[in-house]
Amino acid sequence: MEAIKNYISEHKERFISELIDLLKIPSVSADTAFTQDVLDTADAVKKALTDAGCDAVEICETDGYPIVYAEKIIDSALPTVLVYGHYDVQPADPINLWTSPPFEPVIKKTDKHPEGAIFARGACDDKGQMYMHVKAMEYMVRTNQLPCNVKFMIEGEEEVGSSNLAIFVANHKEKLANDIILISDTGMIANDVPSITTGLRGLSYVEVEVTGPNRDLHSGLYGGAVANPINILTKMIASLHDENNHITIPGFYDNVEELSKEERAEMAKAPFSLENYKNALAIDAVYGESGYTTNERNSIRPTLDVNGIWGGYTGEGAKTVIASKAYAKISMRLVPNQDWKEITDLFKKHFESIAPEGVKVVVKPHHGGQGYVTPINTVGYQAASKAYETTFGKKPIPQRSGGSIPIVALFEKELNSKTILMGFGLDSDAIHSPNEHFGVWNYLKGIETIPYFYQYYTELFKK
Amino acid sequence: MEAIKNYISEHKERFISELIDLLKIPSVSADTAFTQDVLDTADAVKKALTDAGCDAVEICETDGYPIVYAEKIIDSALPTVLVYGHYDVQPADPINLWTSPPFEPVIKKTDKHPEGAIFARGACDDKGQMYMHVKAMEYMVRTNQLPCNVKFMIEGEEEVGSSNLAIFVANHKEKLANDIILISDTGMIANDVPSITTGLRGLSYVEVEVTGPNRDLHSGLYGGAVANPINILTKMIASLHDENNHITIPGFYDNVEELSKEERAEMAKAPFSLENYKNALAIDAVYGESGYTTNERNSIRPTLDVNGIWGGYTGEGAKTVIASKAYAKISMRLVPNQDWKEITDLFKKHFESIAPEGVKVVVKPHHGGQGYVTPINTVGYQAASKAYETTFGKKPIPQRSGGSIPIVALFEKELNSKTILMGFGLDSDAIHSPNEHFGVWNYLKGIETIPYFYQYYTELFKK
Repeated sequence: MEAIKNYISEHKERFISELIDLLKIPSVSADTAFTQDVLDTADAVKKALTDAGCDAVEICETDGYPIVYAEKIIDSALPTVLVYGHYDVQPADPINLWTSPPFEPVIKKTDKHPEGAIFARGACDDKGQMYMHVKAMEYMVRTNQLPCNVKFMIEGEEEVGSSNLAIFVANHKEKLANDIILISDTGMIANDVPSITTGLRGLSYVEVEVTGPNRDLHSGLYGGAVANPINILTKMIASLHDENNHITIPGFYDNVEELSKEERAEMAKAPFSLENYKNALAIDAVYGESGYTTNERNSIRPTLDVNGIWGGYTGEGAKTVIASKAYAKISMRLVPNQDWKEITDLFKKHFESIAPEGVKVVVKPHHGGQGYVTPINTVGYQAASKAYETTFGKKPIPQRSGGSIPIVALFEKELNSKTILMGFGLDSDAIHSPNEHFGVWNYLKGIETIPYFYQYYTELFKK
Repeated sequence: MEAIKNYISEHKERFISELIDLLKIPSVSADTAFTQDVLDTADAVKKALTDAGCDAVEICETDGYPIVYAEKIIDSALPTVLVYGHYDVQPADPINLWTSPPFEPVIKKTDKHPEGAIFARGACDDKGQMYMHVKAMEYMVRTNQLPCNVKFMIEGEEEVGSSNLAIFVANHKEKLANDIILISDTGMIANDVPSITTGLRGLSYVEVEVTGPNRDLHSGLYGGAVANPINILTKMIASLHDENNHITIPGFYDNVEELSKEERAEMAKAPFSLENYKNALAIDAVYGESGYTTNERNSIRPTLDVNGIWGGYTGEGAKTVIASKAYAKISMRLVPNQDWKEITDLFKKHFESIAPEGVKVVVKPHHGGQGYVTPINTVGYQAASKAYETTFGKKPIPQRSGGSIPIVALFEKELNSKTILMGFGLDSDAIHSPNEHFGVWNYLKGIETIPYFYQYYTELFKK
C-alpha cells in the first residue's frame, strides 16, 4: 500500500487547504453568538462527506446542533466501522493571547512540528482529526480499496456535553449499528512514540453561584459586617481539597478503581521526563494529590478544577465594592466506576451544605459523562496497533488519557460496541488553549494510517 | 436666617437641574475610557464655582486629573474654611443592574426618600454632596452673608486614591492654609437621626496575580497534575481569615486600637435594628469577626474583603480549561494607628510567602490611606453640631464610619487642620453600587445647613 503515500503526496496541498477552509468557520458551540457558524459548519461537513464518496449523507436535526450522518455500505457480510467526530470547537478566548487570529488559520513551524503546524481553534480538536477520516475515506473510495462498510456520525455539541447526541444514539440504534467505533479525538505521546488511548476520564461540570446581599455594597460601609460572596466562594472552593490535595466531598472516592502495584509499575514505564514537562509549562514544580505520580494524577485519579471564576469589579483600577454575587465553573474528571450523575449529586449536596449563613448557594449541573477503559485484547485494538506499526515503524504504546469523551461510555451501552481511540495530536498542541495547532505531519500521518486500520480490521474480523 | 429657606425654595428647581447636568458627565476616574469626561467635569466645576461667586477659580494641573481650586478671601482676620470634595465617580458597572442609566439622572421616589431622590452614579458620592457647598456658597455670596474666608479644593482622583492630591497639598501648604476643613462625603444615620462622622477607616488596596503554567491548559490532560492558579488563589484568599474571621496576616492587628468597654457601650447606644439591617440586604444572617457587633465590625475593626476576582473561562456554557493566570482585587479597611503602607507591606510579604510551589505570585499595591478620628471637643465639631441642631431640630450623634477618605489624615499632617465630616447621605443610597441616589430632601437640607456652620464657626472661632 505505497499507494496511499503517493496519493497523499499528490493531494497534500488540497488536503491542507480544505481543512483550512473548515477551520475558518468559528463553530463555537458554547456561545450562541456563533449559532449560524455552527450550522454552516455542519453543511460544510455534509459537503465534504459527499465529495469523499459517502452515500446517504444527511443533516440530522436535534434539539441542539445537528448531527451529520453518512454511510457507505458495500456488503452486509463485511464488518461496519462507525466513525465519530465533532465539528464544533471550544471558545477561542482569551483571544489576546493568540499569536494569530483563531479563525484565520496559518501554518507555522514549531520545535515539535518542524514541518509546520496549522494554527487555528479546532485544528487538532477536532476538525483536523475528524477530517483525516474524511480524506482517508476519499482515498479508499476513489481507489476502490474500501474493505468494509463505513458510517460517519459527526456532531456539533461535543464541547458542550453531547446531550442531544445521546438522545440521537438511543433513538437510532439500528441506523448506527456497527462492529467497531473509531474516533480520533485524543493524542499520542510523541511523533516518534506512537500510542493508543485505552482509558478516558469521566466528567462532571457544574456552575456555582453564591449570593450575599441583594445589591453590590460599599466595602467601607459594609466590609466585615456581611458575608462577602467572593470571600465565601474562595473559602468554599478551598475546602474542596485537603492538605494532601485529596477531594473532600463525602463519598467522592467510594467507587474509584484502585490500580494494583503491578499496573502502576507498568504505567510508570511510559517514557516521561518531569524536567521536560515542567520546562514546557514554565513551572518550578508540579502539584497534585499526595502519593501519586504526575502521570497517575492526570489519568487514573479523579480531580476537581475550577475552570473559571468571577465576581465583583474586574475592570481597570480600583473599586471598593462588596459584590452581591460570585460565580465559578468547576469540573471534576472522573475515573472508571465513578458515575458522573452520582458525583454531580454528591458535589451539589456537599457544596450547598458548606455554605455559611448569610449567603445562598445555587449549584447548576452543566453536563458530564462516564469514564471509559478499552481492553487491548480485542480485534479492534490489534488492528489499530498494527496500523500504527505499519506507518510509524514501531508498535504503539497503550496509554490512559486524562481527558474525557463523555459519549464513549454511552456508545458502549447503547450500541454495544467498543471504541478505538486513534489520536494523532500531541499534548503540546494547545487544545482548549490559545494557539491551538495540529502538525501537518500528524494530519497526513493520520490520513495514511487510517486505511490500514480498515484493512487490518476487516482481515482480523473475518477470522 | 429663615432667608436661606426662602432662597432654597425659590431656586430649588435650578439647584436640582444644575446638579443633574453635572451628573450627566461620566467622570469615572478608574477607567481611561472616560478621560475626556473627567476633564470636562473639572471644567464644569470651575464654571460652577465662578458662578457661585468665588474669586481666583483655577484648574490646577497634576500628573493625573486636575484639581479645581477657588477661594473668596474677605478679611484675613477672619477664619478660613477649606472645603474639600471630589468630582470623579466610581465605575457604574454592573450596568445591567441599574434600573435607569447611570449617567441619565432621573428623580424617583423611594421608601426612605418620599420626596424623591436623584438616581445617577455620583449623585451622593460625591457630586451631589460637593455641589451642596457650591450652592451654599452662592447663597452666602449673593445675599452678602459670607461670614469668613472660604477656599475650595475639588479633586478628580478620590476614587482612585488621591495620590496626586497628596503631592499638590504638600506643595501648596500656604495656598491651602486654613483653620478648618469641611467635607461632605459621608452619611448620616437617618433623615430624622442626624449624625456627624467622627472616625474613618484607613485603606490598603492591592491587586494579586497568580500565574501557574505558561498557557491555558486542557483540564482533562493536565487536571490534577499541575497547580491550577484559580484553585490556588481561592486557597490563598481563604487562608487570610481564620475560623473566627480574624485576619491571619502576621502583625496585622499589632497597632489596632482596642476600645474600652465603656466606649463600646457608648457606641452600642446608637439606634440600630439588626432585623431591619438584614431585611434591607435580604440576608438571613450577618457575618463577621467573632466577638464584635455588626456596628463594631464595620467601624472600629479592620477588615479584608475581595472586591473582584477573575480567571479562566467566564463566558456562556462550559470550557474545560486550566487558566494560566488568576487575579483578585483585595482591600483592607484599617482603623486608627494602623499604617496603611506598613499593612500593605505585611500583606505583600504574607501573601507571597503562602504561595505554594508551582505558581508565581505578584502583589501590586494600588493605593491606600490612613484612618482618622475627629475629636468632638473642638470648635469645628461644636459649630457643625449646632448647625445640624438648627436645621434638623435635634442634636446630631457622633458616629464612626467604616468608610475611608484617605486624604483626611494627610490633611491633618500637611496642613495641620482638623476635618469636619458633614455628610447628608444615607447608607441605603447605594454609593459604589448600581442605582446610587441622593435624596432631594437631603440635598436641599445640606444646602440649608452649611451656611449655619460658617456662621457658628466664625462666631465660636472669635471667642
